[in-house]
Amino acid sequence: MNISEQIRRLADDAKMAARRMATLSTEVKNDLLQRMADGLEKAVPSLLDANEDDIAAGRDKGLSAAMIDRLVLDEKRIQGMADGLREVAALPDPVGEVTGMWRRPNGLQVGRMRIPLGVIGIIYESRPNVTADAGGLCLKSGNAVVLRGGSEAIYSNTAISTVLKEQLIAMTLPAAALQMITVTDRAAVLEMLKLEEQIDLIIPRGGEGLIRFVVDNSRIPVIKHYRGVCHIFVDASADFGMAEKICVNAKIQRPGVCNAVETILIHKDIAETFVPLIAETMRNHGVELRGCPVTREFAPQVAEASEEDWQAEYLDLVLAVRVVEDLDEAMDHIARFGSMHTESLVTRDYANAQRFLREVNSSTVMVNASTRFADGNQLGLGAEIGISTTKLHSFGPMGLEDLTTRKYIVMGDGQIRS
Amino acid sequence: MNISEQIRRLADDAKMAARRMATLSTEVKNDLLQRMADGLEKAVPSLLDANEDDIAAGRDKGLSAAMIDRLVLDEKRIQGMADGLREVAALPDPVGEVTGMWRRPNGLQVGRMRIPLGVIGIIYESRPNVTADAGGLCLKSGNAVVLRGGSEAIYSNTAISTVLKEQLIAMTLPAAALQMITVTDRAAVLEMLKLEEQIDLIIPRGGEGLIRFVVDNSRIPVIKHYRGVCHIFVDASADFGMAEKICVNAKIQRPGVCNAVETILIHKDIAETFVPLIAETMRNHGVELRGCPVTREFAPQVAEASEEDWQAEYLDLVLAVRVVEDLDEAMDHIARFGSMHTESLVTRDYANAQRFLREVNSSTVMVNASTRFADGNQLGLGAEIGISTTKLHSFGPMGLEDLTTRKYIVMGDGQIRS
Repeated sequence: MNISEQIRRLADDAKMAARRMATLSTEVKNDLLQRMADGLEKAVPSLLDANEDDIAAGRDKGLSAAMIDRLVLDEKRIQGMADGLREVAALPDPVGEVTGMWRRPNGLQVGRMRIPLGVIGIIYESRPNVTADAGGLCLKSGNAVVLRGGSEAIYSNTAISTVLKEQLIAMTLPAAALQMITVTDRAAVLEMLKLEEQIDLIIPRGGEGLIRFVVDNSRIPVIKHYRGVCHIFVDASADFGMAEKICVNAKIQRPGVCNAVETILIHKDIAETFVPLIAETMRNHGVELRGCPVTREFAPQVAEASEEDWQAEYLDLVLAVRVVEDLDEAMDHIARFGSMHTESLVTRDYANAQRFLREVNSSTVMVNASTRFADGNQLGLGAEIGISTTKLHSFGPMGLEDLTTRKYIVMGDGQIRS
Repeated sequence: MNISEQIRRLADDAKMAARRMATLSTEVKNDLLQRMADGLEKAVPSLLDANEDDIAAGRDKGLSAAMIDRLVLDEKRIQGMADGLREVAALPDPVGEVTGMWRRPNGLQVGRMRIPLGVIGIIYESRPNVTADAGGLCLKSGNAVVLRGGSEAIYSNTAISTVLKEQLIAMTLPAAALQMITVTDRAAVLEMLKLEEQIDLIIPRGGEGLIRFVVDNSRIPVIKHYRGVCHIFVDASADFGMAEKICVNAKIQRPGVCNAVETILIHKDIAETFVPLIAETMRNHGVELRGCPVTREFAPQVAEASEEDWQAEYLDLVLAVRVVEDLDEAMDHIARFGSMHTESLVTRDYANAQRFLREVNSSTVMVNASTRFADGNQLGLGAEIGISTTKLHSFGPMGLEDLTTRKYIVMGDGQIRS
């Protein structure tokens, strides 16, 4: 069987399994996730063995220390996967929820019921924990899942998915509800991306290169985000202490992630005092600033920002700073240079807070809070399957509900159309 | 300026206009739609003149009588467009609705707010009323719209869009919020489908050929449906009178549309009596039947159905009939041959009704009602922009709400992440 047939058969089986998974009770799905968690805990020795094979192969291939670190499984990380599955089991089940129901003049009762999407394809790199995390979310929401991890984690991913599949089999559920593509050839991904009849949604998780490859080659809808160029606007009325604390937290608490702040905008009326203050604080935290001419007037040690700095996702201890006329100029800057990820306003002005919340159409818009809260867990969705910065279907952090859709249900007593 | 630049500039302008449209109050948008309705009524003579040019050109090109009929505008059809705009003005505005709000343990208030999608592209054929109908829905939901009608209706579409644009200008709103592509070359559509930075969603309206062309060539998400292969399952416990009435209505009330029934499934326990009954009734209504072997046993005059009949969207007075073992076999048939459009069950059995509503994952699932109700107006959405049989973003008839998405809003008082 060639790769094309192999991937297609695997996806056909997932599609068949999805029909069964869609009808499972919450109780059965929760039981499944609990057993998967138990299974991972019991399998620690064999998972560590498989992981060693990946690490050895990675060392042979000359992977960087950072790459190897992402690959490594230890008892704590396996425990983390098991805990994650138990947390997802504890989340409310979105499937079957009726989100509205109304009566038509002719007596028809019309409503919308939440149902699984069907088959979800996850394409990811290095970190083997995604196998369990994404698998758990897809199964809890009544979907089947086709997983395609990176070739560098193939032994670990195969071992984890085998443990998860065993629990499906033990409960006489279709093993094909969780499929792992073990063909490491990239052709397998290309074949997967063609299967629009079998797979309903693709979620790529990884660097911009992987995501662009998936988007460029997929016939299946893709939910993704490329970059996080997040902004904080410090308004004229801002509490300086709060603004400082929020800017520092948003930049340095974890600089390498997509919801870290990359550009701070400062109202011109407070520039003379706030610019030197934030420049000093950031320098003390080891952050390199790049500023507009007005910023540099009040903090001459700051380097000059170029046009590229306004669009940069540094993912590092670097921060762009710009002084703006007012709220409108700040919102124009965000609309022009932002990536529709997350923006925050620091203010004491009620009207400006209302305008910012209404008019800035990024996926997460905040007042007086750190951009670092733009995350499924932090916002209270439970676990997160990814973040979307495209507006179709989902916008922002995605939880279980985002792995479902809604159908119309209609209850009549013989109505016909006249 | 070449076609590529021309289309791109027009879409850039629409994107700029979309930011302004997103902030308009409901009152202003309703006023705009009312003025557009008034404007169309006042422009009847010039709209009829423009339409005559299209009809003359259509006759020269040898268009069929049916095609010409779709093109024709008369006073009644223009009144229909104006009335449609007033109906959309009267619908509730989805923008700004907060669909949920909760408090996190750290005091952050988190909610989801409905916002417009941005710029919506509509690609359609012949019927010039789509210009006003789709335009009104997109503007009411706070979006900008790029319209691309068929070349055969170019004079009518241009005249209608000019009237609509005049009202934007009269209210000092951006005229680019409603763009009409007047380049009749198909290259213009191809250019439009590349503009993923400017256009957020494409909705094609027309035959399967147009839709496939759009899907195959678009980098922008497309919401569409190809076909409507709708089913009715007449259960063992069905009230025969009700079943007959529903089947007849679903087949003959308007056979050429996507929510007309194409296959009737009949429970084996009632085949002996119900098959001859429905065969007789359908014959009296001029419907040609194609049946499975069991059907033909009880109604020998029925032609033999081939495998293709189970997948056929006849859009005509033809109906496939199959006798099945039970509810499970009926649901298997629907899953295998259906198009995820609309299915209805006729029954008196509570448990079967519950199972059908839960387990059949077509976009509209009914009990004891005609499939002809699968329509935005009939289901109570107000007007309809289209129907989706793909699950992402929208599934089923689409109203104003489906032209929006939701962002997260977060209100804090200085929270930072620890």
